[in-house]
Amino acid sequence: MNERAALTLLGDELAHAGDDAAVVGGQVLTTDMLHETTDFPEGTTRYTAGWRAVGASLSDVAAMGAEATAAVAVYAAPAFDDDDLLAFVAGAQDVCERVGARYVGGDLDHHAEFTVATTALGRVPDGSGATDSGTDDASPLPDVGPVRRSGARPGDVVCVTGSLGRSAAALERFDRGEDDRANDLFRFDPRVATGLAVAPHASAMMDSSDGLARSLHQLADASDCGFAIESDRVPIHDELAAVAATEPADDVLEAAITFGEDFELVFTVSRDDLPDVRTAAPVDVTVVGDVVDADVTMDDRSLADEGYDHGG
Amino acid sequence: MNERAALTLLGDELAHAGDDAAVVGGQVLTTDMLHETTDFPEGTTRYTAGWRAVGASLSDVAAMGAEATAAVAVYAAPAFDDDDLLAFVAGAQDVCERVGARYVGGDLDHHAEFTVATTALGRVPDGSGATDSGTDDASPLPDVGPVRRSGARPGDVVCVTGSLGRSAAALERFDRGEDDRANDLFRFDPRVATGLAVAPHASAMMDSSDGLARSLHQLADASDCGFAIESDRVPIHDELAAVAATEPADDVLEAAITFGEDFELVFTVSRDDLPDVRTAAPVDVTVVGDVVDADVTMDDRSLADEGYDHGG
Repeated sequence: MNERAALTLLGDELAHAGDDAAVVGGQVLTTDMLHETTDFPEGTTRYTAGWRAVGASLSDVAAMGAEATAAVAVYAAPAFDDDDLLAFVAGAQDVCERVGARYVGGDLDHHAEFTVATTALGRVPDGSGATDSGTDDASPLPDVGPVRRSGARPGDVVCVTGSLGRSAAALERFDRGEDDRANDLFRFDPRVATGLAVAPHASAMMDSSDGLARSLHQLADASDCGFAIESDRVPIHDELAAVAATEPADDVLEAAITFGEDFELVFTVSRDDLPDVRTAAPVDVTVVGDVVDADVTMDDRSLADEGYDHGG
Repeated sequence: MNERAALTLLGDELAHAGDDAAVVGGQVLTTDMLHETTDFPEGTTRYTAGWRAVGASLSDVAAMGAEATAAVAVYAAPAFDDDDLLAFVAGAQDVCERVGARYVGGDLDHHAEFTVATTALGRVPDGSGATDSGTDDASPLPDVGPVRRSGARPGDVVCVTGSLGRSAAALERFDRGEDDRANDLFRFDPRVATGLAVAPHASAMMDSSDGLARSLHQLADASDCGFAIESDRVPIHDELAAVAATEPADDVLEAAITFGEDFELVFTVSRDDLPDVRTAAPVDVTVVGDVVDADVTMDDRSLADEGYDHGG
């Protein structure tokens, strides 16, 4: 059984297991595990590992349209070197600070392979806080969260934040031994502020951690809809374009939409709301296609459900 | 650097890292990692593994005197067998149900060794909920949580819940191939209800996951005090007494106080509050000694800071 089949099984058992995070009483909770052989290429610093691992969980909070409040991590390694551990904690703290969350500690475990388990906690903005300062109690703000994967409607457009291919470019930099640049690329900004800005408008949302292609299939499954994507609208990260300058354009596009690990947001919204979304979002929002009744296509051809299988 | 030194290092960096769980805005968050070679003896069922791993995190919530609200887990294994995974989830759900929490899902990861990372979320009871139903708004309930490790005062007594040695007995049953009984013993009840009942009275609290001896040293360090324990007051689990019937009494006592993994609560309270604590707590509460100015002793001899080094 592969990971997706297993997740489907978990999903049958557990409410909302298909979303990026669970929601319990207004709290958003999500957990991930990353490890050396599949997630941290040779050359990844412990600072970057701390940033990236905690960032991956914060990205799941962002994908729910929630505020990020706190994160914890388990650091598992064959031995605990002071400098490594402090660097990891510094990376974890810095990525939390970047999104207004607090890194509040964790646990240590001996493990043959360097392995990190991270958990992020968030809070769904429910508009109830606004009544404290507002005067119009009879008309509370609408409930704006959480944003699930299941609300996309034909007629909406589908958008991505930022650009795709940053982690694919980082891998290439690691392969070339350009570790400093690779580490820079590996430390992404979780889109928490963007998720909050988009949440009042988005009909469905998730992050692109498994790649745009797979994300679209997952949104399509959850929302019982399809997507019609136009390849020339897909925003490709400058670094991917640079490292792959001699590659055929189709291969670069393929890497951008299937490599994943970019932790951008993929969301659907009505066309009428686009101007408000663009005004509110602190990063670029690009429309890559339309929500349709069925089938996931790119340039009118079927788009395969291929992407990065975490931990595979 | 061993685990305790590393945790001390984390503690220097992070507020409250010494407690069983972090507290952020009234939410209590804690995470742990368990794995096959050190935590799940041969014969441990996946149902028991799910129960025990999630239970360990719920015990940390209990040790803060908090309500347990939710838990998540990462299940990492070389392959994902349907029956194994469903059994794990069932165990995780059942232990959550036992304490009024919800198991809300998790993540899967491929890993050479069966490894589980668990996170539990709790809520500190702050008495504010009581004002909704009460009429005496001018006299709100006292803030009863969280209970930290740092409040023990000379003159208080030190108590443990339930009895010690259950996991040590389980290990012996596993060694004998008595897996059914061993699995039963391995599935403990996290002391969430007891933690909540004790919280309004306790000056310091933690769980006994590293053994009573080490817990006392950790409370002593955090509270800048000592403990004087009387060995004949230490409550020893019937099963440990049974499996070790032919062992010298000193060895049985040693196992009970150093093996750990019992997930009982160790707390300090003023002697005057003992009757109220005993009335409120749904399990037996045993006074094992006194809080003193300095030094951790048992029967007036120094008690070594020895215990189970998780992941060691």
